[in-house]
Amino acid sequence: MSREKKPKQLLSIIGTETLLQQTVARVLPLIPREKIFIVTNASLADEIVSQLFTHFGGSWKSQLIIEPEAKNTAPAIGLAAIHLERIDPEEVMVVLPADHVIQNPKKFLEILLEAEQAAKQGYLVTLGITPTRPETGYGYIQTGESALKNTFHVKRFVEKPDIQKAKEYLSSSGYFWNSGMFVWKTNTLLQGIEAYLPNLFSSLTEIQKSIANKTVKKTAELAFSKIDSVSIDYGLMEKASNVVIIPADMGWSDVGSWDALEEVMPKDSSGNVTIGNVLDIESSNSFLYADRRLVATLGLKDTIVVDTPDATLICSKDRAQEVKKIVSELKKRNAEEYLIHRTIYRPWGSYTILEESERYKIKRIVVHPGAKLSYQMHYHRSEHWVVVSGTARVTNGDREYDIHPNESTYIPVSTKHRLENIGKIPLQIIEVQNGEYLGEDDIVRFEDDYARQEGWPLLPEIPT
Amino acid sequence: MSREKKPKQLLSIIGTETLLQQTVARVLPLIPREKIFIVTNASLADEIVSQLFTHFGGSWKSQLIIEPEAKNTAPAIGLAAIHLERIDPEEVMVVLPADHVIQNPKKFLEILLEAEQAAKQGYLVTLGITPTRPETGYGYIQTGESALKNTFHVKRFVEKPDIQKAKEYLSSSGYFWNSGMFVWKTNTLLQGIEAYLPNLFSSLTEIQKSIANKTVKKTAELAFSKIDSVSIDYGLMEKASNVVIIPADMGWSDVGSWDALEEVMPKDSSGNVTIGNVLDIESSNSFLYADRRLVATLGLKDTIVVDTPDATLICSKDRAQEVKKIVSELKKRNAEEYLIHRTIYRPWGSYTILEESERYKIKRIVVHPGAKLSYQMHYHRSEHWVVVSGTARVTNGDREYDIHPNESTYIPVSTKHRLENIGKIPLQIIEVQNGEYLGEDDIVRFEDDYARQEGWPLLPEIPT
Repeated sequence: MSREKKPKQLLSIIGTETLLQQTVARVLPLIPREKIFIVTNASLADEIVSQLFTHFGGSWKSQLIIEPEAKNTAPAIGLAAIHLERIDPEEVMVVLPADHVIQNPKKFLEILLEAEQAAKQGYLVTLGITPTRPETGYGYIQTGESALKNTFHVKRFVEKPDIQKAKEYLSSSGYFWNSGMFVWKTNTLLQGIEAYLPNLFSSLTEIQKSIANKTVKKTAELAFSKIDSVSIDYGLMEKASNVVIIPADMGWSDVGSWDALEEVMPKDSSGNVTIGNVLDIESSNSFLYADRRLVATLGLKDTIVVDTPDATLICSKDRAQEVKKIVSELKKRNAEEYLIHRTIYRPWGSYTILEESERYKIKRIVVHPGAKLSYQMHYHRSEHWVVVSGTARVTNGDREYDIHPNESTYIPVSTKHRLENIGKIPLQIIEVQNGEYLGEDDIVRFEDDYARQEGWPLLPEIPT
Repeated sequence: MSREKKPKQLLSIIGTETLLQQTVARVLPLIPREKIFIVTNASLADEIVSQLFTHFGGSWKSQLIIEPEAKNTAPAIGLAAIHLERIDPEEVMVVLPADHVIQNPKKFLEILLEAEQAAKQGYLVTLGITPTRPETGYGYIQTGESALKNTFHVKRFVEKPDIQKAKEYLSSSGYFWNSGMFVWKTNTLLQGIEAYLPNLFSSLTEIQKSIANKTVKKTAELAFSKIDSVSIDYGLMEKASNVVIIPADMGWSDVGSWDALEEVMPKDSSGNVTIGNVLDIESSNSFLYADRRLVATLGLKDTIVVDTPDATLICSKDRAQEVKKIVSELKKRNAEEYLIHRTIYRPWGSYTILEESERYKIKRIVVHPGAKLSYQMHYHRSEHWVVVSGTARVTNGDREYDIHPNESTYIPVSTKHRLENIGKIPLQIIEVQNGEYLGEDDIVRFEDDYARQEGWPLLPEIPT
């Protein structure tokens, strides 16, 4: 289901919300939206802003922190910390991966409040998940003495174990999965980075010094290019002495594999999890996932089926961990499927490719109320637009006019044009492109509300 | 893969040709096209004519025999026989189901020539398939003494056996599968029907007498409504004394189930049959069929996967015979998937539904060169047409005009209109329908090249 350009954070795997939307919604009862920041790489920023707008309304552009380069979690968290430090170094910071499922959000919030208490006392707090299977794909944490109510000192961090060790940890109490969720005061974290990751700390300091400068993005890019890739677990948590763990039993899954997800899902009497348009006859212990298309299954055992608009995966459950092999095989074949889904998000909305052939391409385009696409031109394609809902303001060469549902217009090749939703409901148009070349890169942008010519800023402005 | 409105005869399961097209192509070296007739029900006639045109060119309208009602094989074959009798009662008639795969067509033609020799001597000839598995889904024929070269008298017909009997038949020689393929002189057949199915014979005689009348279709409908449903095997072959069998070993499959098809397909070293866009990692003894979408499989064993544009089937191989359960479950749910595929054939070409929602529907329409749709009108929808290849002549209210690739036009609601391909290559248009009701039954036809207001004639005219 996830692809290089569509990681699982941005998918709605359970229910209609995406994992990112669920993650934000989960903390909103405790944390106001202006204090929620998303650390991401620039290529996903458009879709993140679009998803959060769609679900929560308003602009989320000033909630994004753009990591210049992927260098694992320590530099990404560090970058967020220097932004938060400018707001209030004493405030408690919560680090949450945006690709987790938590079936009991109420319990989750209670645990966050406990963690906040520990963080305020200067601890680096990690949330530990009670193991439910002998998982070999996670690190484990062994608890030591009690520190506070429901909070324990950490005896040791354990690397991903083999199956025998994993079974031992499952049967003995005191071992927890390392969830990657952390709570600490911003300055406690930065002190830890200074002590245990001094090179990272000096890079962050360098970036922080130039925050007011126009060159901050270049500075950060240069700094990140030199920073070592290191996880916050390995770089800091395993070494620091002020680390505590709070056991968290809240229906957690990192959705890292289909069997990890399956475990937190409700099952029928034959042990099947079925989601979506599935017609099953007498399968057992299977995970059956359909999107809009029909998936019919008959007599399957211990099988995983995942159907998406452009591809279907069927795999034996005991080999769920090997799905990456399919991705690397597709990479070798240079197949488009590993990269993209049919729906592509943009800051102004989204488009879905309905059909492609050599000479034409058909898209459904959805534009948010008030949003407009860039003022643009194509050298190789003309476009027919038919409005199916909402009102479109069209700039077409020298003319500007509005079109309504059941009206259409034609944008000739090499003609400057713009599409804007001037209404209050989403604008949906069907676009038929004709031309000898239909690549997305045949676009010349003259004006753009989303500054895509310059790219995203490193850090948001701090409101004065 | 097959549906009520798209039986397997009309599907391309192996290669690009449909089973119907393959069946016709297979006999063309021996039988000229004007002597090939297709017995069908009226609801499939449009698509049959369209498929044969697409593959072989020319009109096939006068090659169709329309059974008024499904009454099993004896009445259908009898109806064809009274048509052939008018051409030449002494000529040899070959009866071939249009949904068989034959991997060795050369051998098949050799066998037909042998069968012709036997038929000319007044035999009712049936082709028997050498069993390759203990199949319980077929009838068997036990051979008796030799009649001619490679031709045997029939000792007895055996009903579908249980698995133990089927295993016996497989190990003893002299038992063959009843393939449903027959060869005989038209008058030999009609004499057999007269002797063993006298009621059917008198109904056929009644229809024959009124062939020149305008009322023949009504006569036939009335006659068929009273005829007993009976197979030619049970009604005639098992009773007649002049029946012979020719063993036919030619890579035959009736594609009656996925495992029946699998048997005649080439396998890889792990015993998998893979067709289409399949990416498999380490599956074994599985049948993996993809259409255009990607199907990725990992570690499957003895599993059947069949992917089509609107649905995917995944089933354990030992339960392949139970796929009908899915169909009946879908029927109960009143699901559209059991009825149709996304591409619908019409006598003028075809259309494919690309997307549907409550207020709009998008179709790709393909019109054969020279063909035109009916002169029609819709009360609830307007249509936008964008030409993507070929040239369209459009009648739109009072106006008539041509549109070319990259041009579009708009048909308002309640406006009489017509679409015609006046060019030499297929016309492709993208249609965007808008309206409050988008059902296919919102159509008023004023003129139609395909006489769809009156329906198909029972039998073709005989050229004078």
